[in-house]
Amino acid sequence: MSAIAVRAMFRSHPDHPNHADTISRCIDTCFACVETCTACADACLAEKDVERLIACIRLNNDCAAVCTAAGSIMSRANKVGHRQLLEAQLTTCVAFCRACAAECQRHAGLHRHCDVCARACMNCAIACTEMLSSMRMPA
Amino acid sequence: MSAIAVRAMFRSHPDHPNHADTISRCIDTCFACVETCTACADACLAEKDVERLIACIRLNNDCAAVCTAAGSIMSRANKVGHRQLLEAQLTTCVAFCRACAAECQRHAGLHRHCDVCARACMNCAIACTEMLSSMRMPA
Amino acid sequence: MSAIAVRAMFRSHPDHPNHADTISRCIDTCFACVETCTACADACLAEKDVERLIACIRLNNDCAAVCTAAGSIMSRANKVGHRQLLEAQLTTCVAFCRACAAECQRHAGLHRHCDVCARACMNCAIACTEMLSSMRMPA
Amino acid sequence: MSAIAVRAMFRSHPDHPNHADTISRCIDTCFACVETCTACADACLAEKDVERLIACIRLNNDCAAVCTAAGSIMSRANKVGHRQLLEAQLTTCVAFCRACAAECQRHAGLHRHCDVCARACMNCAIACTEMLSSMRMPA
Repeated sequence: MSAIAVRAMFRSHPDHPNHADTISRCIDTCFACVETCTACADACLAEKDVERLIACIRLNNDCAAVCTAAGSIMSRANKVGHRQLLEAQLTTCVAFCRACAAECQRHAGLHRHCDVCARACMNCAIACTEMLSSMRMPA
Repeated sequence: MSAIAVRAMFRSHPDHPNHADTISRCIDTCFACVETCTACADACLAEKDVERLIACIRLNNDCAAVCTAAGSIMSRANKVGHRQLLEAQLTTCVAFCRACAAECQRHAGLHRHCDVCARACMNCAIACTEMLSSMRMPA
Repeated sequence: MSAIAVRAMFRSHPDHPNHADTISRCIDTCFACVETCTACADACLAEKDVERLIACIRLNNDCAAVCTAAGSIMSRANKVGHRQLLEAQLTTCVAFCRACAAECQRHAGLHRHCDVCARACMNCAIACTEMLSSMRMPA
Repeated sequence: MSAIAVRAMFRSHPDHPNHADTISRCIDTCFACVETCTACADACLAEKDVERLIACIRLNNDCAAVCTAAGSIMSRANKVGHRQLLEAQLTTCVAFCRACAAECQRHAGLHRHCDVCARACMNCAIACTEMLSSMRMPA
């Protein structure tokens, strides 16, 4: 739903951002990852084996922080002269998402919320990688 | 998409949060409002009549900040003993969303992004109001 | 240090915000509370009695989210016509800070980081209350 | 003031983080940069020559987003096995701070808030660079 709203925004943005569909999807996937990581950290906290989930909780919270930054920077569409800054934040975001997905995956058998979160993080890593590819192609 | 992921998280949350569907929808609508308000502020900045849109830009940014707080607090599902805190943040969020929707609506005829944003803010005000109603009903 | 920088900003802000000293102090105290609550949540996670600190970790994270919103809204100084919105967020912030301070205080004897955090939360509640008083006085 | 509180937190953190003084100073400088960039974006919005300040406003907001992520990740002190993730976010933060400082510096003669902000951004770039150096040294 929100990807549709963001796409409509970018279509009416006076700067006519390139790659409006890719960027809308990427923003939406970043914020979906924020939601899922924040909720997974809280569900982990409530588990009986919380001591085994400390690294997962920390990565969840770190990943949410990085995806918030990436999503909000992309929402300010115009990056004329500053493409390499957005690329740096997206590349950092991919690294956090992959690390968080790997840690969540280790607990996916025991905790369904970790399984859901691992997939949200992988989706976000993929969307950010596609965004990076789009940026490197001529518009 | 993300509402589905968050709902799956809450279903596997060891605390079994009440109103998991309403809260998932509300979290998702809050973050959709964050995306839309951030993008609308940036689109307004690029408009030729930016001087007329200063109040709109400020409210967009304030609304994004408040919806981020509301969304992240709801993502930590367990509010045992602290229901009134979540109610306070949701009530504050409704006030910001309504004010931002009203300001965006004033520019909706000229700027389609303001029209899209006004609707995202109204959706968020409605979702937060429904969440508040759910919290006041027995589980 | 940062309060001094923010005060210098507001003195050169073209809108000449009222109560520049009170607002600068309040912004700075809000972000100090964000830092302390985030660090306390992480220190709690690493404690051997983490199961007793779950409520503290959640309130720390919620309080950080609310103080981030309050601090960033105040950093956008001009609230012409929207004083009641800032008042709502500040009042909500006071409620979260007091609840978090009370919970941290319960663990202050065992964990020095909870004692430090309780004081940062009380400082923030006081600064927001002073800000609310200033707003109700004629400039 | 807040650097002192954060340092006290880390001294009582059960994981005994390395470089507690450097990290405390870096966290505090990141959040000072968040405050200053957010306030500078708002002051720019209120200037008569706002059209010339659009790039500055965008970089201010992007820089605030990136510094928020860096500050909150560092506030979760324990990075065992994930040092390279923190390094990635700090390196990205240095890039945004330098770009924002350079843009603000262009307007420093006309607008004192841009001068104050340029210095806060440079301070943050320096603190993050020192933090990166500390991480590469043996504890």
